[in-house]
Amino acid sequence: MISPGFTLHVLRERKPLIHQITNYVVMNETANATLALGALPVMAHAVEEVEEMTRLASALVLNIGTLSERWVEAMFLAGAAAGERSIPVVLDPVGAGATAYRTDTARRILDVVGVTVLRGNPGEIATLVGARAEVRGVESISTGIAPAELAVQAARLLGVIASVTGPVDHVSDGERVLTVSNGHELLAAVTGTGCMSSAMTGCFLAAKPGEPLEAAAEALAAFGVAAEDAAAGADGPGTFHARLYDALYALDPATLDGRARVEEL
Amino acid sequence: MISPGFTLHVLRERKPLIHQITNYVVMNETANATLALGALPVMAHAVEEVEEMTRLASALVLNIGTLSERWVEAMFLAGAAAGERSIPVVLDPVGAGATAYRTDTARRILDVVGVTVLRGNPGEIATLVGARAEVRGVESISTGIAPAELAVQAARLLGVIASVTGPVDHVSDGERVLTVSNGHELLAAVTGTGCMSSAMTGCFLAAKPGEPLEAAAEALAAFGVAAEDAAAGADGPGTFHARLYDALYALDPATLDGRARVEEL
Amino acid sequence: MISPGFTLHVLRERKPLIHQITNYVVMNETANATLALGALPVMAHAVEEVEEMTRLASALVLNIGTLSERWVEAMFLAGAAAGERSIPVVLDPVGAGATAYRTDTARRILDVVGVTVLRGNPGEIATLVGARAEVRGVESISTGIAPAELAVQAARLLGVIASVTGPVDHVSDGERVLTVSNGHELLAAVTGTGCMSSAMTGCFLAAKPGEPLEAAAEALAAFGVAAEDAAAGADGPGTFHARLYDALYALDPATLDGRARVEEL
Repeated sequence: MISPGFTLHVLRERKPLIHQITNYVVMNETANATLALGALPVMAHAVEEVEEMTRLASALVLNIGTLSERWVEAMFLAGAAAGERSIPVVLDPVGAGATAYRTDTARRILDVVGVTVLRGNPGEIATLVGARAEVRGVESISTGIAPAELAVQAARLLGVIASVTGPVDHVSDGERVLTVSNGHELLAAVTGTGCMSSAMTGCFLAAKPGEPLEAAAEALAAFGVAAEDAAAGADGPGTFHARLYDALYALDPATLDGRARVEEL
Repeated sequence: MISPGFTLHVLRERKPLIHQITNYVVMNETANATLALGALPVMAHAVEEVEEMTRLASALVLNIGTLSERWVEAMFLAGAAAGERSIPVVLDPVGAGATAYRTDTARRILDVVGVTVLRGNPGEIATLVGARAEVRGVESISTGIAPAELAVQAARLLGVIASVTGPVDHVSDGERVLTVSNGHELLAAVTGTGCMSSAMTGCFLAAKPGEPLEAAAEALAAFGVAAEDAAAGADGPGTFHARLYDALYALDPATLDGRARVEEL
Repeated sequence: MISPGFTLHVLRERKPLIHQITNYVVMNETANATLALGALPVMAHAVEEVEEMTRLASALVLNIGTLSERWVEAMFLAGAAAGERSIPVVLDPVGAGATAYRTDTARRILDVVGVTVLRGNPGEIATLVGARAEVRGVESISTGIAPAELAVQAARLLGVIASVTGPVDHVSDGERVLTVSNGHELLAAVTGTGCMSSAMTGCFLAAKPGEPLEAAAEALAAFGVAAEDAAAGADGPGTFHARLYDALYALDPATLDGRARVEEL
């Protein structure tokens, strides 16, 4: 059942710990978004401690936005620890398709780690399923495949819930496709909002165990509703960014379901 | 004598350099808080330069929030340089109690470096004195000891000024206990505000040499007053966060003493 | 011809990719400033991928604010890749003059990489031309040389466009000197605004190829105009910082030339 309001209520009761191994650019942002939503973020990347930290967590978020070898090593260790404990894992393949190192690393993680949800833009996901994709830096420029079809293919080929975000998001388990139409164009003017949506996905997975398709769609709906609230009264991307945390903090479980625009294709 | 207003006045006259070896999540935040208060932040962590940078500084802040081996190595080098020049050192043991690596690293720093002020939450400090503590990620959940007693014990056992922050802060040199009742609940909704209070502690130590107990309490009072100002007019944690720098920048030495709620137990 | 409005118009049409190897403190800030202006930022520092990423980019920005050996190595690789493709390079020598490691690294980069624009504060640039300079952490305290003369000397000695920023900016190719009088004093109260101006310089170089002197001055004028807009209505450095992105996003190519205060000495 799709009920982001109920899941948010559960999340705020449980305050799950969300272990994030993410990029330098957005660490503060994803931590603050996690905290504002009502979960507890923790960032830890040392090979000496990632396994122990992951075991304490209710979800693990891996993000390759500024990767390097030691960090990738830590991601594998954390991913294995998550697998042993059946802790859900989100992978955000930032910039896959831009450089071989990013594409290869994302593929290696998908091969070895039991990724629950793969959250990316169309260019990144298309790269990972071998479809035509143009990625400029960390931006998706174009792909040769429609996003609904892309989500289905990625889910089937990669054995994950595929969460392909854009003006309309498409989330699939390979059979069903859920679309999410919440959000605001200012999200594209702030760096790291994609990474934040991956962190939100980790939070919702932790609060709705066993239903990753629904949890992934609910996370995007909740984040999109917050973006809509943040945009009201914002003067541009900077004030929007500050207000986005206000809006996540103020998200009301009682009204969220009515505002979420989630549909099944 | 407790006079955060006078110390702030001195700080803005001298603009001391505060060398911070801190975590990736909050670097921008602690730098901006330092600058807004009126001191000069510098972040440097390379083993090639930390000793030289520390020697230029009036205080050193060590924070283990996203530690790894090279960074720990740099902290020891910087700590030794600070010791040679009698430069005050603040240690923020972020996440001690969550993983063995963090607990052990914090203990090693306390053993080897002449830490002036240990600033942490109750769970972290309780861990370091061997008391019962529950830490979830970087969050203190519970301890088996009252904060005033904890501050006294930590100061005695570890040979530091212990600065235990929470809804009411407790600062002790092992004999005296100062409480600070300023602050606002939105501080808990923004990541890195604890780290900022450690940076503020470094600033006040630099401006009030030789009186670390008083300086540590004054720093928390000043930061808490700024938080109270920031909360007025904030719509949530995001706008509060932006307004916190405004408030630090606008702190008035002439009225600060009257607003500071510092008491001796 | 000096026309920041026209260059901004071109930049927003082309959305050039700006590869930034920069410091931990400001990564989010320079990425958001780049995005708000209308270009695409990408941060990548792994030796495995920097050359490939640089080849995709229209400008490369190197910033030594929190340097360490692997990052310096990556800067050399990226710089060489930029040289092969005639991609313009900005160097921001953060803290040169504060430690030998920073001074030496900046010099090595200037020796080996074909730096197009060297953007720094007077103390940093004076250090690199061997003039007397006092640098405290990353702050310029004083130099023994006037900024116009400093810009000319740096340009001649180092074979770069020298962009010396301060209350009035001085940009020189060794023959001509352009001054830029836009800006606001709150820029000095926010960490990383110098780094942002280096990122803006990279953006303008990408949009105005072959005219680096003019592009560098235009970048500072555009950034300064945005700062003037951000300051109107700001309550201090925190709200100014958020509004700075709003202002960069809202910069109007049609009115920018009339507001830019660029003059030739």
